Amino acid sequence: MAAPDLLAQLRSVVGDDYVIAHPEDLLVYEYDGSVDRSMPRAVVLPASTDEASQVIALAYQAGVPVVGRGSGTGLSGGAITPPDGLQVAFPRMARILKIDTLNRTALVEPGVINLDLDNYARKFGLRYAPDPSSQRACSLGGNVAENAGGPHCLAYGTTTNHVIGMEVILEDGAIVNLGALARETVGYDLRGAFVGSEGTFGIATKILVRLLPLPESVRTFLGIFADIDSACTAVSAIIGHGIIPAALEMIDALSIRAVQNVTDAGYPNDAGAVLLIELEGLHEEVDELSAEVEAALWDTGAADVRIAEADAERERLWVGRKTAFGAFGAIAPNYYLVDGVVPRTRLTHMLRKVSEVSHRYGITIANVFHAGDGNLHPCMLFDAREPGVMDNAMAAAAELMAECAALGGTLSGEHGIGLEKKEFMPLVYTDDDMAAMQKVRNAFAPDNRLNPGKIFPDGSYYHPAPHPARHTAGLYA
Amino acid sequence: MAAPDLLAQLRSVVGDDYVIAHPEDLLVYEYDGSVDRSMPRAVVLPASTDEASQVIALAYQAGVPVVGRGSGTGLSGGAITPPDGLQVAFPRMARILKIDTLNRTALVEPGVINLDLDNYARKFGLRYAPDPSSQRACSLGGNVAENAGGPHCLAYGTTTNHVIGMEVILEDGAIVNLGALARETVGYDLRGAFVGSEGTFGIATKILVRLLPLPESVRTFLGIFADIDSACTAVSAIIGHGIIPAALEMIDALSIRAVQNVTDAGYPNDAGAVLLIELEGLHEEVDELSAEVEAALWDTGAADVRIAEADAERERLWVGRKTAFGAFGAIAPNYYLVDGVVPRTRLTHMLRKVSEVSHRYGITIANVFHAGDGNLHPCMLFDAREPGVMDNAMAAAAELMAECAALGGTLSGEHGIGLEKKEFMPLVYTDDDMAAMQKVRNAFAPDNRLNPGKIFPDGSYYHPAPHPARHTAGLYA
Repeated sequence: MAAPDLLAQLRSVVGDDYVIAHPEDLLVYEYDGSVDRSMPRAVVLPASTDEASQVIALAYQAGVPVVGRGSGTGLSGGAITPPDGLQVAFPRMARILKIDTLNRTALVEPGVINLDLDNYARKFGLRYAPDPSSQRACSLGGNVAENAGGPHCLAYGTTTNHVIGMEVILEDGAIVNLGALARETVGYDLRGAFVGSEGTFGIATKILVRLLPLPESVRTFLGIFADIDSACTAVSAIIGHGIIPAALEMIDALSIRAVQNVTDAGYPNDAGAVLLIELEGLHEEVDELSAEVEAALWDTGAADVRIAEADAERERLWVGRKTAFGAFGAIAPNYYLVDGVVPRTRLTHMLRKVSEVSHRYGITIANVFHAGDGNLHPCMLFDAREPGVMDNAMAAAAELMAECAALGGTLSGEHGIGLEKKEFMPLVYTDDDMAAMQKVRNAFAPDNRLNPGKIFPDGSYYHPAPHPARHTAGLYA
Repeated sequence: MAAPDLLAQLRSVVGDDYVIAHPEDLLVYEYDGSVDRSMPRAVVLPASTDEASQVIALAYQAGVPVVGRGSGTGLSGGAITPPDGLQVAFPRMARILKIDTLNRTALVEPGVINLDLDNYARKFGLRYAPDPSSQRACSLGGNVAENAGGPHCLAYGTTTNHVIGMEVILEDGAIVNLGALARETVGYDLRGAFVGSEGTFGIATKILVRLLPLPESVRTFLGIFADIDSACTAVSAIIGHGIIPAALEMIDALSIRAVQNVTDAGYPNDAGAVLLIELEGLHEEVDELSAEVEAALWDTGAADVRIAEADAERERLWVGRKTAFGAFGAIAPNYYLVDGVVPRTRLTHMLRKVSEVSHRYGITIANVFHAGDGNLHPCMLFDAREPGVMDNAMAAAAELMAECAALGGTLSGEHGIGLEKKEFMPLVYTDDDMAAMQKVRNAFAPDNRLNPGKIFPDGSYYHPAPHPARHTAGLYA
């Protein structure tokens, strides 16, 4: 970076206070929710699309790479900025610009916090469905970049299913609109290609999202099981009945004890696993489905089934789920959360593999995850100060990724590829498939100045061991 | 086309019988469901992905453009092939390769007929949701190319919401996979960009689609109104109650009489408009929503409300809707069907504009359309042998397109841009927005050999009059 010149230019665009370049001030921008670290050369906080466009154009002219950052809660290293790079963050572009209750949309700036949007929408009887566990902190811009999910994405889909259109700044500062206000986009639907592209071909500065009406009735079930295998069977039984609950979460024995150690979420300490199931809809619909869910739980060997309908009871059950990752702090100082997907019919098999890997590597692994859509989150718990432990964890994670791919699943359900999984991409894509994606990146960012070194394998990060199974071979199997 | 050489090469790939080059045999490949005509140089019918790839590679090497064709039912000229071009059609690649009842997917070849897939899936208690009016004839490959819709797309979304992954052949014959088997696609989601790209950056040779469980209960309502304005009010009232029916179709007075002239669909001959509304779901859910729909119809001035639950009764009501365009043949020998979208709150306004344009241009216009999502289908009825009538119809259509754009809608709900609307793209996109799409096309088809002359304006087709309102200005308004 031609540092003094560029920094002066950036200050003239956004004001002196909004270019952060002092190493101490930069500490907070060094990491995200993953295990990686890298301090950017500077961080810029634009206040408008116009400022953001000018900032990105100046960096482009100076040959400096640019990385967008939401709230830094990402779990795949997507916002980690190379040492010569400029980070653009959006705390000053955090306004809900418009709620259209008739067409049920919200127009927001990228810095708007997920839960703030949801809470605001609720004043109008609406809600924003994707609910990452980090929803109190994470931003819509980051959600779009990583195609974030959450427990309720089982019924409603991840971020990509809720984004209608975006204003996006390209590598050279050009401003384009992707998607549209109307339901259908004519021409190429680049909206879908942009969501989940992790800021590698543009940075969103306005986002138009879909809001959903609040359900008339919500009911939450806690299914208590003696072991995780029977809980998996219950998952298959419920989905097999044609029921897609709003959420269907699994919490294993280790996680139950970790949670109950911190707060009484009402999970029995001696359970082998619990399922947290939520039904939403009309009163009659919830009543009818409740009977089926309850029957499926008992039929598959539940030790007990508890039902919560009042908000306070439901809230208590969910607090356990949502604080689990924090609760792991009492077990070990560090965690490495792996995000992988398998067809839900292979959950039992995959969880046995997780257990086997845990024993073989001598790493504690807790499982709290979105069982309904086969989206696992094996969470490795360790003390990063122990020599070699990170390498060990990475190797164990690599085996789990390879197994997901071999079972016909994929590398991520909702956390993205980022830095951490880019070398694993050949497990699920052929060279031609990845070349197709690279073509799009090269089309939008021919100079590779937006979040370079993410998504695509370049040999610079942890390599998985060669694995004979390729996902593509079984893509249509 | 270096005709003899290339044709000989093509014959050596697919066999002599499957290269059609005699002008009389080519007549059927000259047109689609739109008003345009152009005879391709030859048509090739490959029997496998491998053959299709070789065919496309040979054409590429010979510098010959290639256009994919499904069943030729498209309504925007998407499959019209330039005189020097090669058409690749898929009647020999029309197998349902696999139904996975557990994961609810079907893997199909592009030539599979939409209704055949749906009927086959029903044997397993499943269905394929997108149901274009041409579903007895149209193919899945064509549906993907045009992102086809249908009445039940109100609740379930258009083709793009039902396609999980595809095998695609690029301009030079390379075979790539877009999308994946698992719910989430990691890396760039090019699946979404491909669906609706009208064969301009690749031709699909395998398609993995989502199947939905059959609903427990289905009930169909016929709301009878004295005029179209009150029918529009009923549409807003129903959606305003938070009800998204499976289908919500409007049929105007002219169309009612045309239909009843051909078959007794049970529509009253003297009605000003009817709404065809379908609810699906659990018994209890349908019961509860039925009461609300009925109340909304009476509250907004329905002259009568009829309810059909038995299959035969429902079928009769739908036959009217689905045969309407055929029934117009008794009114005039030709029709030109315009596909446009407005926010559904602007339906009344837009239908008045349709009426005004009809009178001003002296063209009969019938309206049968997907009212629930604001997707209009003004159908101009005329005799193409009258001099100047086509120009007149095109000018009238251009005004309607401009109005859709000015109201914050878009150019197509489900028929695509193709040839007919490419010059209208500037009504809804800035030059930068279109350049973004062009970048993707150039990335995949740098030599522009796949379906050239479609989607992007190039001055070669009917031009709309300049219109002061630009959609983009109001994109986030």
